Amino acid sequence: MSFIQIPADHPFPIQNLPYGVFSTESESRHRIGVAIGDQILDLSKIVHLFQGKHLKDVAAKVFNEPTLNKFLELGKDAWHEARQTLQHLLDKNTATLRDDSKLREIAFVPQAMATMHLPAQIGDYTDFYSSLEHATNVGSMFRDPKNALLPNWRYLPVGYHGRASSIVISGTPIRRPNGQTRPADDEPPKFGPCRLMDFELEMAFLIGGQENSLGQPIPIEKTQDRIFGMVLMNDWSARDIQKWEYVPLGPFLAKSLGTSISAWVVTMEALEPFKVANTPQDPKPFAYLHHSDNYNFDINLNVFLKPDGMERNLICKSNYRYLYWTIKQQLAHHSITGCNIRSGDLLATGTISGPTPDSYGSMLELSWKGNRPLNLGTDGVITRTFLQDNDSIIMEGYCQGNGYRIGFGDCRGKILPPLILDFKS
Amino acid sequence: MSFIQIPADHPFPIQNLPYGVFSTESESRHRIGVAIGDQILDLSKIVHLFQGKHLKDVAAKVFNEPTLNKFLELGKDAWHEARQTLQHLLDKNTATLRDDSKLREIAFVPQAMATMHLPAQIGDYTDFYSSLEHATNVGSMFRDPKNALLPNWRYLPVGYHGRASSIVISGTPIRRPNGQTRPADDEPPKFGPCRLMDFELEMAFLIGGQENSLGQPIPIEKTQDRIFGMVLMNDWSARDIQKWEYVPLGPFLAKSLGTSISAWVVTMEALEPFKVANTPQDPKPFAYLHHSDNYNFDINLNVFLKPDGMERNLICKSNYRYLYWTIKQQLAHHSITGCNIRSGDLLATGTISGPTPDSYGSMLELSWKGNRPLNLGTDGVITRTFLQDNDSIIMEGYCQGNGYRIGFGDCRGKILPPLILDFKS
Repeated sequence: MSFIQIPADHPFPIQNLPYGVFSTESESRHRIGVAIGDQILDLSKIVHLFQGKHLKDVAAKVFNEPTLNKFLELGKDAWHEARQTLQHLLDKNTATLRDDSKLREIAFVPQAMATMHLPAQIGDYTDFYSSLEHATNVGSMFRDPKNALLPNWRYLPVGYHGRASSIVISGTPIRRPNGQTRPADDEPPKFGPCRLMDFELEMAFLIGGQENSLGQPIPIEKTQDRIFGMVLMNDWSARDIQKWEYVPLGPFLAKSLGTSISAWVVTMEALEPFKVANTPQDPKPFAYLHHSDNYNFDINLNVFLKPDGMERNLICKSNYRYLYWTIKQQLAHHSITGCNIRSGDLLATGTISGPTPDSYGSMLELSWKGNRPLNLGTDGVITRTFLQDNDSIIMEGYCQGNGYRIGFGDCRGKILPPLILDFKS
Repeated sequence: MSFIQIPADHPFPIQNLPYGVFSTESESRHRIGVAIGDQILDLSKIVHLFQGKHLKDVAAKVFNEPTLNKFLELGKDAWHEARQTLQHLLDKNTATLRDDSKLREIAFVPQAMATMHLPAQIGDYTDFYSSLEHATNVGSMFRDPKNALLPNWRYLPVGYHGRASSIVISGTPIRRPNGQTRPADDEPPKFGPCRLMDFELEMAFLIGGQENSLGQPIPIEKTQDRIFGMVLMNDWSARDIQKWEYVPLGPFLAKSLGTSISAWVVTMEALEPFKVANTPQDPKPFAYLHHSDNYNFDINLNVFLKPDGMERNLICKSNYRYLYWTIKQQLAHHSITGCNIRSGDLLATGTISGPTPDSYGSMLELSWKGNRPLNLGTDGVITRTFLQDNDSIIMEGYCQGNGYRIGFGDCRGKILPPLILDFKS
């Protein structure tokens, strides 16, 4: 228990302690904090309190950085020590902070007064495609329901390189893009605003630890040393642009219009109590992808759609545990041909759809390609197939413990109307 | 003319002045230099000589950075001023450097004594697919010679997000990867070393200037303000791994095993005299992709294959001018859905193949999928379909002026044997 009062359904109890980067009006520099209840503990103000062997010489440096990258590089022993130190300092029986009102005054900032920023300088961003249900749904709609999965899908975690620059923090508005689409297959393409704007419910994990050299894969038994923590992700998608552009080299501009992540990075240590059995895999993966320990997690995922000026509507209830490939497998696969993975890299799971239609993680699937409009509210008047301008999508995630929750906060974004482009031509 | 003697066929005369990042044994910090003849002018040692209005207050800062990023951010007026200053300082009639033997001693470093590094911290790397001949060749081999191009190809510059972390400087050895392949379409995939190791002859351009906000496309008439300069690129490719992994999300680990670039960034100002007519485009591009000014360049591109212990063999003579889409069009397209493009981003053209078989820019095309082995040397004993271990690929590029050359130096790399992976399974 902490000396800070925290309700049982609050996302940020002392068992969580997620990391983020924030600033305030009175102190505009970006700095690292840990969420506790509705407060942020500003680590830059308590660097002298990290006296363990891994952090005592470097805390003043890494916790004064404007991103988590230097802390991430330190690796899992330092992460563990930081967590132990913070849990001790925030415990109701520890006087250090509790009874030092001057230090508390400078070290705690109400979350309501903070502006959150990207937690890390993200070097490379990779997006996987690891939900069997999502891949099956998409394959059924666009190819053949009887052969929905492509031949490689069960042999390797399919993934692709995404765009790092367009990853934004929760709350950033997303502009409906203009682009090329081909509405009719027998007519030339057209240029104009995206008509099929979508979200994708994903989670992403942030990499730390020592970079593997180019050419040197990360063995699967070492992957967990490189995984620092997780965030919620909304991989906004312009479906009509995607359909026209994606052959043969994959999704490109349909995705790089913006990708939102939640602000607080929940550590793998905080998620440890919520490990559940991995999804059975058939065929058995190649040795480089094989691990027998559980590395799946029971994380409840909810998606809400909020039309402008209306209440939010729950449109999807999914769970991280539905994923087929584990993130250990994703990371081992990513490096198998020798790709170097750096601290600050972000790897995402792909859309997390569950087995039932109310657990599908995108409008594409929820409305089944636009054929089944969703009713919002109870009167049946407001419906959606894809997202309209000024719609907001709010994602939430949490693990339910015994009397506490490990929450991710939310990942939200609002669709702005498209720009009217005035071309000289 | 410079006071430094430079032969007429040398890549780095005073008309060129490409930028790079280097270190030396006696001074290990990475610093910015300009190539002139066989020397490097160390800009960190002459910051006081930049007295123009754009640089006088910032030269000491940007030219003491370990990468070009801060200089890139300054934009085209500063780039122009830097070039004018350097051409003046290196002119045979300017005494400042010529007659200051003490300054010359610290400011000039022989290239032979320098180690080159990546010129910029590359935020995002994008690879296009803009050679009509290359796309046609690949489509003919893997799909249908009569419908080799996919429907979108002539409407937009097809491209995809690549991996930034695995971009390496010329000279870095490349490890033949292990990975999944499916040698027979009716059998399960196998795991082991890549059997179809390839190069791809490309060029890449480095971005500078002010970042466009997310959601705000770069109009095509502004694109040239964001293009700083160009390098040679070898986009190493594991063809068998690529074939198995790439559906539906595009090439991934077949490419992130390493991507080599030449060390010297040749500025667009230096390339200006070598502009040639753009490739005619049919259909006419959408307005956002339309520009009437020439932005194509006559750059001779040669590729040599050097088996271990043998002489190098010229295996490809191509030219940058064969590209269908200009890099202005690539950049305008990249941002049309709102993707923010940052200083230090690198965008590549895709394989540059010409119209004749001796101008194809990959082993895949040169050997036509392995069906036409290349003879190396004259005795017909040494042949290649794809690359063997310890083969080196050396790319060179230059523009031929009247009595001088604008050269890119070379982009080289050697294939190392694969790791023997010892899996616990």
